[in-house]
Amino acid sequence: MTLDDAALQKFGFVPRPAKDRINIDPLQTGGKLTDEARRALVEWGDGYSVCDTCGGVLDLIKKPPIHALVHDALPEFLGVDQMRITHGARESKFAVMHSIASEGVYVVLDGLAHYSSTVAAQRARLNILKVPHSERPDYWIDLEGYGTAIEEVISQTGKKPALALLTYPDGSYGNLPDAKKIASVCHEYDVPLLLNCAYSVGRMPVNAKSIGADFIAGSGHKSMASSGPIGVLGINDDHGDYSDIVFRKSPTNPNKELEMLGCTARGATVMTMMASFPKVVERTRHWDKEVADARWFSQQLEDLGLTQMGERPHNHDLMFFEAPVFYDISKKIKKGRYFLYKELKAREIHGIKAGLTKFFKLSTYGVGREDLSYIVDSFDEIIQKYQ
Amino acid sequence: MTLDDAALQKFGFVPRPAKDRINIDPLQTGGKLTDEARRALVEWGDGYSVCDTCGGVLDLIKKPPIHALVHDALPEFLGVDQMRITHGARESKFAVMHSIASEGVYVVLDGLAHYSSTVAAQRARLNILKVPHSERPDYWIDLEGYGTAIEEVISQTGKKPALALLTYPDGSYGNLPDAKKIASVCHEYDVPLLLNCAYSVGRMPVNAKSIGADFIAGSGHKSMASSGPIGVLGINDDHGDYSDIVFRKSPTNPNKELEMLGCTARGATVMTMMASFPKVVERTRHWDKEVADARWFSQQLEDLGLTQMGERPHNHDLMFFEAPVFYDISKKIKKGRYFLYKELKAREIHGIKAGLTKFFKLSTYGVGREDLSYIVDSFDEIIQKYQ
Repeated sequence: MTLDDAALQKFGFVPRPAKDRINIDPLQTGGKLTDEARRALVEWGDGYSVCDTCGGVLDLIKKPPIHALVHDALPEFLGVDQMRITHGARESKFAVMHSIASEGVYVVLDGLAHYSSTVAAQRARLNILKVPHSERPDYWIDLEGYGTAIEEVISQTGKKPALALLTYPDGSYGNLPDAKKIASVCHEYDVPLLLNCAYSVGRMPVNAKSIGADFIAGSGHKSMASSGPIGVLGINDDHGDYSDIVFRKSPTNPNKELEMLGCTARGATVMTMMASFPKVVERTRHWDKEVADARWFSQQLEDLGLTQMGERPHNHDLMFFEAPVFYDISKKIKKGRYFLYKELKAREIHGIKAGLTKFFKLSTYGVGREDLSYIVDSFDEIIQKYQ
Repeated sequence: MTLDDAALQKFGFVPRPAKDRINIDPLQTGGKLTDEARRALVEWGDGYSVCDTCGGVLDLIKKPPIHALVHDALPEFLGVDQMRITHGARESKFAVMHSIASEGVYVVLDGLAHYSSTVAAQRARLNILKVPHSERPDYWIDLEGYGTAIEEVISQTGKKPALALLTYPDGSYGNLPDAKKIASVCHEYDVPLLLNCAYSVGRMPVNAKSIGADFIAGSGHKSMASSGPIGVLGINDDHGDYSDIVFRKSPTNPNKELEMLGCTARGATVMTMMASFPKVVERTRHWDKEVADARWFSQQLEDLGLTQMGERPHNHDLMFFEAPVFYDISKKIKKGRYFLYKELKAREIHGIKAGLTKFFKLSTYGVGREDLSYIVDSFDEIIQKYQ
């Protein structure tokens, strides 16, 4: 292509279609900016504005208080000895895997692990063994399965796996297994545990120390009201010198951490995390209200003929529904696959992927009872319309 | 610390101190947002808003036109066969090194390489040999030195280096060596060349194909008027199937690229790059004016008793000055190290690091003749004041 005016005019400012809709996409509900973060975004938007104030190490910047955030507040919030800001949960997981495991070694992942955990292990050239889960309707991870998987790796390779990982909760069903129990099983074999908390840190209280997790990965854009890409990586050194390994420094550039490539969130992203942090801390204290909303919503949808999969009663805002009532409608009408998306769009509701009717996931996080009621009424209306 | 109200109140929105000053920090001049990018930032600021429109692969999103940007416009702009959006130039370099080189293999870097090139190689567990440069005042990279370095690696290890890298321009002196010649030398030995163009792509015309470079790394926050962290990675397949290697996909998740961990700039960052792109393309067409401004500014400072190091006449906006006149003043007065920073701050000029007087770098990019004149006058005034 030639970069003439005609070719260039499609770029420039492009409006966001779903901006003002009620959004129940699990990817979006916890990442919506606070007013403070929106102000910070504009204030610190240029290039990598934060570097104006940097003496060479991002997390040592005193003004703005990035040092206090990274070395005091976030470690307390996560329950860890050390933490760093990363580009996201997947980048946190890769940094850990790439540091503590040599190529060809095994890692054990829960069977519901997000694809990015698999991809992080593959990028680090590791082998993967998955802990099985039960099938429909619970999709429940076998807690003892971690022990079985670790033993299988040892018997097959003669070496224990370098790491076990639990997705807490998983991104399909929103199940929250007993992480403390799993940590204890892993530690019996001297295998460290990484919790992928992309859907929990910033939404609900999670404390890696109390759970006994060695690593915790969180996502700023998914659950900490931050403008992405940004995440957190917390490390506990109770069972090993893990932070020294993962945050090891360059032999030639002694203030630059290798796994961070010297620096990570060198722009507005970290300032939005800082801006939202007080409200994020506060909102995790009202998690019981969010769980109550999720359960109420689940019950309403079940009353309409849908079925919630996964843990029951549910303990998280991310839920997976089977919707035979919508699937039946979709089979009866022209271009039926898209009817649900279109009907919801007409009602300014976004977040169920276009084309899905038989089953889908959604999140009630921060939506509030009023808008949740409106969504229930909309579902009811759509069913009435086509039946 | 306890996360009580007193502890939390230091976070939230924090103003940017240098926001409204004239900024001549080389890190900042090319990353300042366009008006379109500032609008995009607010529009797409939430979490990872872009994912609302994603079918599973970021760069295949048609609306907003990320597909057209990544698969048509940016390849044309960079002169490459394939490109991807990354988190920054350093992340681009690491992705290449981690893909094409096995642990323990050598890479050849120019002696002026940015620390992030060194750190990327170290993270990938590679060995480094540097091509020497001349000393003061030119700091000029020995073009033939690439051949010598490659031969040295071969004679020491029996294997050719996996990659050569040239920083174009370097981040200290703003020198622009003959990259085409260096590419040709590297290809004589069948060694691919990566150009680190963090300070050129988005400022001046750079075409990897014309130069003969196999890889090109650029920085959105440094030089493409984008909100960081964001960068570009372009690949030419003229001398090898490099894009297949670097952009290889997961064996289990066939639409996810391993080196990208499945997805990179999954937020507002990519939308600011898109928003600024037309103006960024346009501004590279007026590079001659920027070079003229840099040369004019250099001459003015030399008239005041400073000396510009590096290439002369200079071909880039990034320049390094020795300033004995300021150094002499700093020795005479109390807390002298900081006098220059304070005097410039009082005149709303930012970008020369606090504490520097003897030598410093700066950038004239996009500052414009009027503000550059004001800076020259300010330097003159400061010298007069203390002499």
